[in-house]
Amino acid sequence: MVIVMKLNSSAEQISALVSRLKNNGFQTHLIKGVKRIVIGAVGDRQPVNMAALESMPGVEKVLRIMKPYKLVCREVQGEDTVLRVGGVNIGGNKLTVIAGPCAVESREQLLAAARAVRLSGANVLRGGAYKPRTSPYSFQGLEEEGLCLLAEVGAETGLATVTEVVDEESLAIAARYVDILQIGARNMQNFRLLRLAGQIRKPILLKRGLSATVEEWLMAAEYIVSEGNGEVILCERGIRTFEDSTRNTLDLSAVALAKQLTHLPVIVDPSHATGKRELVAAMSRAAVAAGADGLIIEVHPDPAVALCDGPQSLDPGEFDGLMAGLRPLAEAVGRELQYSPVQ
Amino acid sequence: MVIVMKLNSSAEQISALVSRLKNNGFQTHLIKGVKRIVIGAVGDRQPVNMAALESMPGVEKVLRIMKPYKLVCREVQGEDTVLRVGGVNIGGNKLTVIAGPCAVESREQLLAAARAVRLSGANVLRGGAYKPRTSPYSFQGLEEEGLCLLAEVGAETGLATVTEVVDEESLAIAARYVDILQIGARNMQNFRLLRLAGQIRKPILLKRGLSATVEEWLMAAEYIVSEGNGEVILCERGIRTFEDSTRNTLDLSAVALAKQLTHLPVIVDPSHATGKRELVAAMSRAAVAAGADGLIIEVHPDPAVALCDGPQSLDPGEFDGLMAGLRPLAEAVGRELQYSPVQ
Amino acid sequence: MVIVMKLNSSAEQISALVSRLKNNGFQTHLIKGVKRIVIGAVGDRQPVNMAALESMPGVEKVLRIMKPYKLVCREVQGEDTVLRVGGVNIGGNKLTVIAGPCAVESREQLLAAARAVRLSGANVLRGGAYKPRTSPYSFQGLEEEGLCLLAEVGAETGLATVTEVVDEESLAIAARYVDILQIGARNMQNFRLLRLAGQIRKPILLKRGLSATVEEWLMAAEYIVSEGNGEVILCERGIRTFEDSTRNTLDLSAVALAKQLTHLPVIVDPSHATGKRELVAAMSRAAVAAGADGLIIEVHPDPAVALCDGPQSLDPGEFDGLMAGLRPLAEAVGRELQYSPVQ
Amino acid sequence: MVIVMKLNSSAEQISALVSRLKNNGFQTHLIKGVKRIVIGAVGDRQPVNMAALESMPGVEKVLRIMKPYKLVCREVQGEDTVLRVGGVNIGGNKLTVIAGPCAVESREQLLAAARAVRLSGANVLRGGAYKPRTSPYSFQGLEEEGLCLLAEVGAETGLATVTEVVDEESLAIAARYVDILQIGARNMQNFRLLRLAGQIRKPILLKRGLSATVEEWLMAAEYIVSEGNGEVILCERGIRTFEDSTRNTLDLSAVALAKQLTHLPVIVDPSHATGKRELVAAMSRAAVAAGADGLIIEVHPDPAVALCDGPQSLDPGEFDGLMAGLRPLAEAVGRELQYSPVQ
Repeated sequence: MVIVMKLNSSAEQISALVSRLKNNGFQTHLIKGVKRIVIGAVGDRQPVNMAALESMPGVEKVLRIMKPYKLVCREVQGEDTVLRVGGVNIGGNKLTVIAGPCAVESREQLLAAARAVRLSGANVLRGGAYKPRTSPYSFQGLEEEGLCLLAEVGAETGLATVTEVVDEESLAIAARYVDILQIGARNMQNFRLLRLAGQIRKPILLKRGLSATVEEWLMAAEYIVSEGNGEVILCERGIRTFEDSTRNTLDLSAVALAKQLTHLPVIVDPSHATGKRELVAAMSRAAVAAGADGLIIEVHPDPAVALCDGPQSLDPGEFDGLMAGLRPLAEAVGRELQYSPVQ
Repeated sequence: MVIVMKLNSSAEQISALVSRLKNNGFQTHLIKGVKRIVIGAVGDRQPVNMAALESMPGVEKVLRIMKPYKLVCREVQGEDTVLRVGGVNIGGNKLTVIAGPCAVESREQLLAAARAVRLSGANVLRGGAYKPRTSPYSFQGLEEEGLCLLAEVGAETGLATVTEVVDEESLAIAARYVDILQIGARNMQNFRLLRLAGQIRKPILLKRGLSATVEEWLMAAEYIVSEGNGEVILCERGIRTFEDSTRNTLDLSAVALAKQLTHLPVIVDPSHATGKRELVAAMSRAAVAAGADGLIIEVHPDPAVALCDGPQSLDPGEFDGLMAGLRPLAEAVGRELQYSPVQ
Repeated sequence: MVIVMKLNSSAEQISALVSRLKNNGFQTHLIKGVKRIVIGAVGDRQPVNMAALESMPGVEKVLRIMKPYKLVCREVQGEDTVLRVGGVNIGGNKLTVIAGPCAVESREQLLAAARAVRLSGANVLRGGAYKPRTSPYSFQGLEEEGLCLLAEVGAETGLATVTEVVDEESLAIAARYVDILQIGARNMQNFRLLRLAGQIRKPILLKRGLSATVEEWLMAAEYIVSEGNGEVILCERGIRTFEDSTRNTLDLSAVALAKQLTHLPVIVDPSHATGKRELVAAMSRAAVAAGADGLIIEVHPDPAVALCDGPQSLDPGEFDGLMAGLRPLAEAVGRELQYSPVQ
Repeated sequence: MVIVMKLNSSAEQISALVSRLKNNGFQTHLIKGVKRIVIGAVGDRQPVNMAALESMPGVEKVLRIMKPYKLVCREVQGEDTVLRVGGVNIGGNKLTVIAGPCAVESREQLLAAARAVRLSGANVLRGGAYKPRTSPYSFQGLEEEGLCLLAEVGAETGLATVTEVVDEESLAIAARYVDILQIGARNMQNFRLLRLAGQIRKPILLKRGLSATVEEWLMAAEYIVSEGNGEVILCERGIRTFEDSTRNTLDLSAVALAKQLTHLPVIVDPSHATGKRELVAAMSRAAVAAGADGLIIEVHPDPAVALCDGPQSLDPGEFDGLMAGLRPLAEAVGRELQYSPVQ
């Protein structure tokens, strides 16, 4: 059961409601969304007087949700969740473009990438400092040093920032430096990390697992939201299938479906999905046409020398071409690209 | 090795070349494409004097192709193959929209569907008369009676027609009634059927198999083309993966990739790919944005009573909405919808 | 609905029953099984007096089957179907081992393979004469010449024979030469071929499709059986998944499950499933332990020069080792290897 | 590069070698295996004098390993790693059977399960205290209370114990109570957790991820071993494929292959792989026949009331039947079941 509070509900009204629910044997989850407070009440099998609850002060509506994901589903909130990060919208009518290198390698590399993507119209700068690598012997990222550079370059170029976190420690550190924290595909069901991400006050970019169903993906978001952090951005990045001509199989139907099932923003990562530079622009257009709220794209000043994911990284010129092609397409589907506030 | 003949090469020049190749131990495949003749020469391991071949009269160029698909690859023909069917282009700048019911059920049903999709701007009418069904006890189609209806309704509405063939017999019969013959996903590696399809003079719509790689799909096209029929339309219709929230997983990266690898037209079937009516419009837009040359969409006058695939069929109103949304999108990616010549 | 006739039911009793069913609006399928006649009655929605049918002379029992596969399911026949081919049992307590080269290449090659596998205890000789190849330019088999060799070598060594058929023509020809006809994975849903296979009087070895579910596999068998040929042998040969360290993923759970769902024999092809010689023996043992009724294994006198599938073919010595390891294992699970009647 | 030390090498010899490697620009990984010390030296591109290294005191051999997993591969250690846990062997000729409930629910439930599986010949007791659940609202385990019960019941029945850990905290706590720590499929690429598991001195049971290739699975083991803990047990538990008649697809070829590629023990979980009680015994036999070193099986005193995974749990009678069937099979493949030392 989910209780949606009125926009102007008071702290007293909320705590009165929570007390009543607990007295009735419910476990409660208080979700501070972007605009309103929602209370999830789970675990009860006994009949409850929904009308009585609905008549309590501050309550807008009480819903019985049959889906396993109760707080992120469209039934709770019909309109799209729109997040605000550093002057940029994520979700809603405006598209968000996140771009930057796979890994932060140096100040020069990051700054070059940031300036380039900024000029072409990107809104958020990506850059990995903690890299989950298949091999223990591969480059694992610059860690806190990389975060410092990311924060510095973000400030210098006026771009919001996003970076991947992989455990409790990197989450705590990254939360001090960057605007959006990413949980990667391999950690989509690292439930401990999801819970911790639900306890901070920063947006979480949650990538779909390599073999996660749409329902499992939404349940992972529900983990975060049920801890109180309603600011989750879903990201489709390709699933693992038998097809080996692309790195993964980009599942855009999952994007269109997720947009129907949840009010959370859904973006697409065509770089990891395809693993091939020459497919990134086409798949970016397809993602927007399918209804995605944004893109996250790997751009490197010189892909040939990238420490990771070179073959799928665009150079600044290619990225600029991609953005140019995206503009008319966005309009054609009734969306618009937005520009970062600082010029 | 592939020999591309000049546009105006004569029959004598061709037969002289073929003789010389055979004398050198080659097996030859004469491909009558839409615009030009191409000769595939396969099976030789001994060194050949390519310059000498290239200097023969009528020869434009001689190419050594490393890819396993030799006649359908971009290396042989840089520009897109454009087919002409009943006044409609397939391939090239103009998008083709094929629409109609899963199965031909009756004259009334088919005519209602045809008129509706015609009005909304479809170019080709689809309708199944031989249905490959998982169960031997399911409705298997009206067979030749269905083909008669399809031809009749096509003529009446000015729409070209396409139907699925499943074996030698249905291929022979259907070739007498309809304009385009479809080979379904389950027959993509029915090599006998592919060879037969290569021996007729009608365009073949070749669906990708449920678990076929892009390379296997192109090799299936190569089977048809190597028999002499260069008019093949590739169709992505979703692959089989672990994800069960959609009927199949639409693989649009494969479309973008196939467009790079082959000169043949590539279209998309969002109806079978998703299996869900409410995803068809979004995936149609995504397909066009990814670079597809057209769409094939299931439309039924009354999906609730459809004999097959009701849940994924659009009603005429939904299809009209889809077409309206497609127009600006097509323009945004530099393509255009075309209208059938008869009004 | 399925009507199981008594063992000694007469032709008159059967035709009386069929007439009655047709008068009641049923479509009937007469299945001549190994031991008894079964009549499938499909397509009716109106209530039928089952007790009245059951009291007709010659009728043993009348069953309402909820599963989509009605004739091959365990509910119709509790005991295992046991086929007899050239003195060899397929199904039941005795294991069947089919072995031989991927393709018939020459009399010498085939005879060497046959003698070797015969000595090691194989019961049936395999050899491909019509090869379904991904590329139109690959070796496609010796066709009828290969079948002649297969029949000749089978007779000379006292081995029953099996070969793959790919279309109506090869089916008709092969039926004259060999004992068991195989329908390959790529043709598992070539419904026309399945129906034709149901109309002949030879056992059909039906391979599971690369992406076929267990239910679809059983439905393919149902196609054959519903045409009147109850002698179907199911063969698991690996499914297509993301894992690329083996050619396919051998799905032995499907074997154990199929043995519970159907009374038909189920065998395993570890050669195609793994694609790696060094895994064939271990997977043969695992298959028998999982409950398989037999194995089909690629053996070539000299795998290094095999025209196809060399890397997965065993040489005679390796095959002999495999058979030696199989003997105690078969006993441990209460099964036994059988030897061909001619020594 | 990997340096295998002699069995009796001294601490001084090891530190001399490590110093020399570091001076040459190598990153070193000291692995204390069950029997010997191995030093991994990674990251250097400059030529090194291997003969000189090999002649240092205490060094047995120096190997250049081309595979990405350097310490777990067969090239480093030809013989199987055999672990000793509470008087039980894991790896080598003797099979290990781990059994018990999915989740520890109560003292009574666990004790009943433990006594039953002990009587039937199990060697290790499993029981989950930290359950990674898809839904945040599902039962998450008894946590430390569950570990206490596990330790208590293990001691009482003379069974070694294994439990799943999901994060740093549960790892630290569980290491105080149980003998073997399990890292589950969803955490197989939780690299932080892998590193922590490499820093403790308890055996780690590492499950294969739902969509992990064999190589990725071995790389995950390499993460643990490269931190110094050589006691890793690999566990195949089914991969995610299109087939939905079983919960996952048990990949026994991966077991046979892993046994060839690595010296670590490899066991199989037929309960999670199939998700169906009626397939567990057949798949247990198949696993042993494929070469698995052991099994982990869910057994519940009363599966009908199990808090999780009831449909795949055996009751004590079924488990006893499974063990009885396993005995002759183990012998037939030259293995033996072992019994726990305490009676």
